[in-house]
Amino acid sequence: MALHLLQRNREGATALAHALTQAVEEVGHCRQCRNLSEADVCRLCSDERRENSVVCIVESPADIIAIEQAGGFKGRYYVLHGHLSPIDGIGPEELGLDQLEARIIQLQPAEVILATNPTVEGEATAHYVTQLLKPHVALVTRIAHGVPLGGELEYIDGGTIVHALQGRRVIS
Amino acid sequence: MALHLLQRNREGATALAHALTQAVEEVGHCRQCRNLSEADVCRLCSDERRENSVVCIVESPADIIAIEQAGGFKGRYYVLHGHLSPIDGIGPEELGLDQLEARIIQLQPAEVILATNPTVEGEATAHYVTQLLKPHVALVTRIAHGVPLGGELEYIDGGTIVHALQGRRVIS
Repeated sequence: MALHLLQRNREGATALAHALTQAVEEVGHCRQCRNLSEADVCRLCSDERRENSVVCIVESPADIIAIEQAGGFKGRYYVLHGHLSPIDGIGPEELGLDQLEARIIQLQPAEVILATNPTVEGEATAHYVTQLLKPHVALVTRIAHGVPLGGELEYIDGGTIVHALQGRRVIS
Repeated sequence: MALHLLQRNREGATALAHALTQAVEEVGHCRQCRNLSEADVCRLCSDERRENSVVCIVESPADIIAIEQAGGFKGRYYVLHGHLSPIDGIGPEELGLDQLEARIIQLQPAEVILATNPTVEGEATAHYVTQLLKPHVALVTRIAHGVPLGGELEYIDGGTIVHALQGRRVIS
């Protein structure tokens, strides 16, 4: 990419540099959900058509984009910007968990959905956040672990099969 | 593989041909669960330590191997050897659904788990089998669809995210 810009598109390189500088200067974190945002409060937090009754907690802004593209979720978000990882020095303060607690007390949602990744660190983070929020919210839920759509049992790892069997739902 | 056998391992080729012929002649279907088996009734069906109270319905013998390797399931199986696919001429008869119905009436399990793949055909088959077995069994369940273990939301398709959110489970 660097070679292409220097050999064939020097104007493009200048424009890119300008855009990057502008992004670094102007894009900050939403005061309410910590999502990336140019404004003080992001588009999703200021949208009055979204419901305050459900808050979905994710690890990164990319997860919000994925969930929004999937559609169907109309509640609020909160971005942790990572997961608990003591070995890398990432503890509750770095994830803004005190700010999360304050936000939940303020919003008074009926449900908090923990949509951290189904990795070891993501599960540990979900467990910690559950303990933290339990006193303030009636219902804490976790996204389903199981076989992805279009997947075939034959090619899926054992851990996922165990979760898919344990998490089976009643049809009739 | 053919070249290797012909150039360097002609005895191996003879042994392989013999093993294949023997397999074709001797491996048939278990009378009870339709799994591949040398005996009239397969090892899993004749194992008295397994529970008759749960029957897991899968598309292929490979799915049984995957579930057994994952561990944790101790019930009986039934193999459909495919899924409903009218365009390929695969209907209820080809999947042995009359034999399945008879087997369920005979076993009287408390629960039937539908572990067909989460593809369009697999879902259609699960729906058909549910309708068929509903009069004979109290509880019909479906394996969980969701984010596979170790997966990251960011890289997962929208359909799976929607299912993971819909199928969320209560933690507290």
